[in-house]
Amino acid sequence: MAARTPRMQLADQVAEELQNKIMNGEWKPGQKLPTEFELLEELNVGRGTIREAVKILVSRNILVIRRGNGTYVTEHPGLMDDPLGFSFCTDKRKLAQDLCEIRLFLEPNIASLAAERATEEDIAKIMSCCQAVEQAIYAGTSHRTEDILFHEAIAAASHNQVVANIVPIIHQGVSLFIIVTNSSLLEMTIRTHRQIADAIARHDGNAAYAVMREHLIHNRDRITAETDSLSAGSC
Amino acid sequence: MAARTPRMQLADQVAEELQNKIMNGEWKPGQKLPTEFELLEELNVGRGTIREAVKILVSRNILVIRRGNGTYVTEHPGLMDDPLGFSFCTDKRKLAQDLCEIRLFLEPNIASLAAERATEEDIAKIMSCCQAVEQAIYAGTSHRTEDILFHEAIAAASHNQVVANIVPIIHQGVSLFIIVTNSSLLEMTIRTHRQIADAIARHDGNAAYAVMREHLIHNRDRITAETDSLSAGSC
Repeated sequence: MAARTPRMQLADQVAEELQNKIMNGEWKPGQKLPTEFELLEELNVGRGTIREAVKILVSRNILVIRRGNGTYVTEHPGLMDDPLGFSFCTDKRKLAQDLCEIRLFLEPNIASLAAERATEEDIAKIMSCCQAVEQAIYAGTSHRTEDILFHEAIAAASHNQVVANIVPIIHQGVSLFIIVTNSSLLEMTIRTHRQIADAIARHDGNAAYAVMREHLIHNRDRITAETDSLSAGSC
Repeated sequence: MAARTPRMQLADQVAEELQNKIMNGEWKPGQKLPTEFELLEELNVGRGTIREAVKILVSRNILVIRRGNGTYVTEHPGLMDDPLGFSFCTDKRKLAQDLCEIRLFLEPNIASLAAERATEEDIAKIMSCCQAVEQAIYAGTSHRTEDILFHEAIAAASHNQVVANIVPIIHQGVSLFIIVTNSSLLEMTIRTHRQIADAIARHDGNAAYAVMREHLIHNRDRITAETDSLSAGSC
């Protein structure tokens, strides 16, 4: 054990040095890092230290190793999986209600911003995500991933980076609870998604706000009913 | 290097095992872990592996080591420092605007929920935080920490766990930009904070919403002016 301590400390220092290069913009999100050989020449440390440092930054979701390709800065450096610790919440029913509540505060406003600020490219993306949800529903397969992508495309069209980072986290939480079986609810999803996409496409912020709110209230009621039956079943 | 790989893999497995004990509620937030000796007996692995595993969970903010005291589950397991990666955002001016925007969506609603749901204990906490901000301002010292605690106390009184986790993250971001020097703005802070606290104390959701909104709009305008002068200064 004793022999490892100095290298670990050095690795922490090197990790910080590499992180600073990203924080000051020298290395950008998505950029490929210099080779291990170039790094150890530049930083004047051993290969083992570089590897430890890279590993530390991978565990913080700042770097990603693509096998046989190289080491890259992640697209969203420092944005962790489950950063709010939802998976540690033992009362899933309360978590579901809390998530629905915060969605109602945020997402109608986000839809309204998206309507205001969406570029032609954003609109095309939202429309194609909307279509992907419909196709999954008509094919009778799960539309969970497509649904998350639809809401993420709207968040991206708000051109607010904080919103774009928070929405996927909330949706990953929500997706823990959604198992849709009722066909009238699927029809509701198809209709409201389409209305939201259309409102954004014609830059109508008020309509986008109102339909997103309607969509979320339907979702909340469905999730409340499902988690009620879940907790009744498990008691 | 070759000798380390098996232990690292074992440490990852043990880390997952310990994490599961927290996720299934066997170990609760804030709880002290069994001693290292008890753990190595139970898990049938070496001391080095246990230490590696604990280190992995400390780096994920799931465990915390209190020197000379023991290892504990954190109060908010898995909630990371800067989980949205604000420190990696190079355009700080845009980040400030984005944060102000999302605060306006969330915090008036949170104040309204707090007014609806605050217990006597919540109200006492909000009042004492409100007073601490006033005292810091009158003493001419920074009220940054007290300000964050005031808004966190309101978020806690909403009794929505997701809100209580998200608000501190947003405030840590906002606090990167706030350097208040103008005395009329300090008077505004004292007045609106007091009005928000009073509205929550008398369970008046509409008033809490309206005053929080006024407070945030003042803040936004101040931050916009300050970041404008910052970016003008640094260009």
